[in-house]
Amino acid sequence: MTDTAPRKRSAARGPRAMGALHQMPFGQVPRPYAPIEVLSADHVMAIHTSALRVLAEIGMAVLEPQARALFAQAGAEVQGETVRLDADLVGSLLASVPRSFGLEARNPARNLRFGGEDCVFASVGGPAYVMDNDGGRRNGTFAEMQDYLKLVQSLNVIHQAGGNPFEPMDLPADTRYLDCFHAQIRLLDKNWQTETLGRQRTLDGIEMAAISLGTTPEGLLDRPCLLGIINTNSPLQLDIPMAEGLIAMAEYGQVVVITPFTLAGAMSPVTLAGALVMQHAEAMAGIALTQIVRKGVPVMYGGFTSNVDMRSGAPAFGTPEYTKAAQASGQLARLIGVPFRSSNVNAANEVDAQAAYESQMSLWGAMMGGAHLIEHAAGWLHGGLTASFEKLILDAEMLQMMQAYFTPLVVDEATLAFEAIREVGSGGHFFGSDHTMSRYEQAFYTPLLSNWDNHTTWLGKGGIKTRERANVIWKQMLAEYELPPLDPAIDEALSAFVVKRKAEGGAPMN
Amino acid sequence: MTDTAPRKRSAARGPRAMGALHQMPFGQVPRPYAPIEVLSADHVMAIHTSALRVLAEIGMAVLEPQARALFAQAGAEVQGETVRLDADLVGSLLASVPRSFGLEARNPARNLRFGGEDCVFASVGGPAYVMDNDGGRRNGTFAEMQDYLKLVQSLNVIHQAGGNPFEPMDLPADTRYLDCFHAQIRLLDKNWQTETLGRQRTLDGIEMAAISLGTTPEGLLDRPCLLGIINTNSPLQLDIPMAEGLIAMAEYGQVVVITPFTLAGAMSPVTLAGALVMQHAEAMAGIALTQIVRKGVPVMYGGFTSNVDMRSGAPAFGTPEYTKAAQASGQLARLIGVPFRSSNVNAANEVDAQAAYESQMSLWGAMMGGAHLIEHAAGWLHGGLTASFEKLILDAEMLQMMQAYFTPLVVDEATLAFEAIREVGSGGHFFGSDHTMSRYEQAFYTPLLSNWDNHTTWLGKGGIKTRERANVIWKQMLAEYELPPLDPAIDEALSAFVVKRKAEGGAPMN
Repeated sequence: MTDTAPRKRSAARGPRAMGALHQMPFGQVPRPYAPIEVLSADHVMAIHTSALRVLAEIGMAVLEPQARALFAQAGAEVQGETVRLDADLVGSLLASVPRSFGLEARNPARNLRFGGEDCVFASVGGPAYVMDNDGGRRNGTFAEMQDYLKLVQSLNVIHQAGGNPFEPMDLPADTRYLDCFHAQIRLLDKNWQTETLGRQRTLDGIEMAAISLGTTPEGLLDRPCLLGIINTNSPLQLDIPMAEGLIAMAEYGQVVVITPFTLAGAMSPVTLAGALVMQHAEAMAGIALTQIVRKGVPVMYGGFTSNVDMRSGAPAFGTPEYTKAAQASGQLARLIGVPFRSSNVNAANEVDAQAAYESQMSLWGAMMGGAHLIEHAAGWLHGGLTASFEKLILDAEMLQMMQAYFTPLVVDEATLAFEAIREVGSGGHFFGSDHTMSRYEQAFYTPLLSNWDNHTTWLGKGGIKTRERANVIWKQMLAEYELPPLDPAIDEALSAFVVKRKAEGGAPMN
Repeated sequence: MTDTAPRKRSAARGPRAMGALHQMPFGQVPRPYAPIEVLSADHVMAIHTSALRVLAEIGMAVLEPQARALFAQAGAEVQGETVRLDADLVGSLLASVPRSFGLEARNPARNLRFGGEDCVFASVGGPAYVMDNDGGRRNGTFAEMQDYLKLVQSLNVIHQAGGNPFEPMDLPADTRYLDCFHAQIRLLDKNWQTETLGRQRTLDGIEMAAISLGTTPEGLLDRPCLLGIINTNSPLQLDIPMAEGLIAMAEYGQVVVITPFTLAGAMSPVTLAGALVMQHAEAMAGIALTQIVRKGVPVMYGGFTSNVDMRSGAPAFGTPEYTKAAQASGQLARLIGVPFRSSNVNAANEVDAQAAYESQMSLWGAMMGGAHLIEHAAGWLHGGLTASFEKLILDAEMLQMMQAYFTPLVVDEATLAFEAIREVGSGGHFFGSDHTMSRYEQAFYTPLLSNWDNHTTWLGKGGIKTRERANVIWKQMLAEYELPPLDPAIDEALSAFVVKRKAEGGAPMN
């Protein structure tokens, strides 16, 4: 954790071949356009009504006894492990969900807004493997994970660290999460996502977040600063570790994202409408539970519906079905007034054209679906099994382009340029006109990754393809990384907490 | 022109390694979603009003005397080469433009609809060079051009041949267009685009289209079957060859697409609003001229506004500015009730991730901008200098995905799947359920190019990247190409016409 200077390997691999790297400044760009609606209002209501029927007549299997007790206490019907909620109960529980909320970062300039037109881009979280052009796919180390986190800090377009980019396999499984939380706090001054697999590691995350803000877990009750993903086990099941995480987060006023993993044709019906019914039912059940635990706590609706390849059973991502499901999910989330999470996903094996077009289909689904959080916004490859260094850069470019697309076109007397048009007249050009000269430096989006040389020039410079440029960029960025300042007292308190919890054994998974 | 059997080179290069190629059937898929509006109604009107002021106060340079005479006759003010049109005149001329129209193909099953929710995808037209993985970028031959056209015929998702995919440099410049028209008619039974550079080649295209439909040019007067692109010379100029082409096409009831080449910062103001003012003014002037020539003739509004890289002056495509301009152009075209053309463009040097994400930004701009024609929908590379064999396949996949995205999500009792959800209950899966089994074969989009193998399997099969798969696919498709039937009498008449016109010298460009 002391390895914050550029590492020798990275520096050696990272010639400063690109010149200054161009980035947009850090900051969320609100979506100024109305979301795309792929469903009619009637169809949205039909899915919603079916989902309510699923919760009332079929119910969810809730494996964790405390969660069942909480549901029962709120008025749900509990039989064995099955919890059934009628439509009125669901409606009254959903009514207290805030339509928007903020998350504090340890650097207040990095605080985030969720809801309305505001969207947050989070880096990839959760893969098993790491990959780059140099070494291919492999198990990752903690040192490599820290490199990845440094890039997440350095890439302005990433607003939030999305948790472990990949598993650091050289650290012990039971305490690994403590080092990862610590790295996210220390190497970044951005907001970060925690792990919510079981009560203990959830509480440890809350404790460390509290320390990082100079307060206690109780001090966070009305001060959201942590976000964690809760996956229901589709079909229609909430397991014990996830229920524990959900309850602990809500108890302390922190934010969970209820995300059913509804792959059409596998864990949910083969029809998109049916998969959305299941997603909506499971999401509403989880969201309801957060409000039972702590009325008014912020919570998000996660849409992750995709389809499987029916020839192999493998999950597919960034498909046309995925795009439609993302935008439909946005409509369902808006219907019930809950902020919406989507993702930037793909099933590609390389950082090539397929990775780009599948990610674009996902991003347009998310951005124009009205998402308030794009999970895995940068770095996700292999259907989520791998975090890629080059994909991180590719995605950063695509996210920046989306932010530039969301920057409204200015229409006023100066931009309409009537006098400049008169001055140049017909057959001339605008390169040297005053109207151009006073604006050209800031007029257009400047890319991070794209190369616009003509073909002959490009070939003359070695014909460097996009994935190779991405490799050069991340190495340069890593070499230029600067550790953000952290109060030494807080740093010490975090270290002490990690040492203590490691000595206690961390949080073993059974 | 007799080279219709698979060519030796291609067959040798094209092992049938992909198995059966999956394609969606031929057919337009209407856009079921409302277009994205990047401008407020006030801002649309501000751009429109400024453009009308440009036409009234500054005017267009119209270099062709007949065009100026036509404008004068209609009531425009003509001074020297400058034509000024007041707002009332423009409004009355635009009023007769049809909001939608059809184009006949020689195979009636290939007839096309433009306007409303209907969009046509046309293959790349106009590049100087050809490129593939095997030979890199080079001058193209007529044999290669025919191969390219065979693929355009074979790819169901391409609705229309967009003219010469690239210049066949082994044919004489003055008569080359005759062989190209002939090849488009003979190798395809789809609708095709003609060349409108000067009166003679425009008339020759009309004559050959008439022969292909068993009629005369006069027989086409109320039977649109040909489309050609007219570029104004921004800023504010219509040159002689383009004016001649426009007039000849309109005289015979055929369709032109008035497309100003407004690169913000070069041929038009550096501000997007200003570039759109110029585009809108030039487009309206050209559209007005078609209605003077033949009131009620179908015509399209072309939006091609992009920006230059202000560091190098090179045109950039598929930028965030391009996407916004495309969608804004759709709003401007809808305001004046003229069908709208956009494009699938990029400035990439390779068929890699950049080519894919820039094309995606263009496609989303076009499709959700409400385009009725996507010009260069497949194959365009290097900012339009090159037609790529692999990009053709990549674009076909992305277009198919767009069509699948436009296929509405079905919501009814069967697709909501309540009973299937009840039957599977919690913790099971849907792989074997009746609901799945009866639907899975048609449930999801099947890709042409994407590979969804898991990473280990993919590596085991050789780790074939997307651009390499595209290479295998086009070779297989070429080997499987079948010549569509053509009435031998029509074929003979076409050949005779080409022989005659070649003997007469074709249409030399001065």
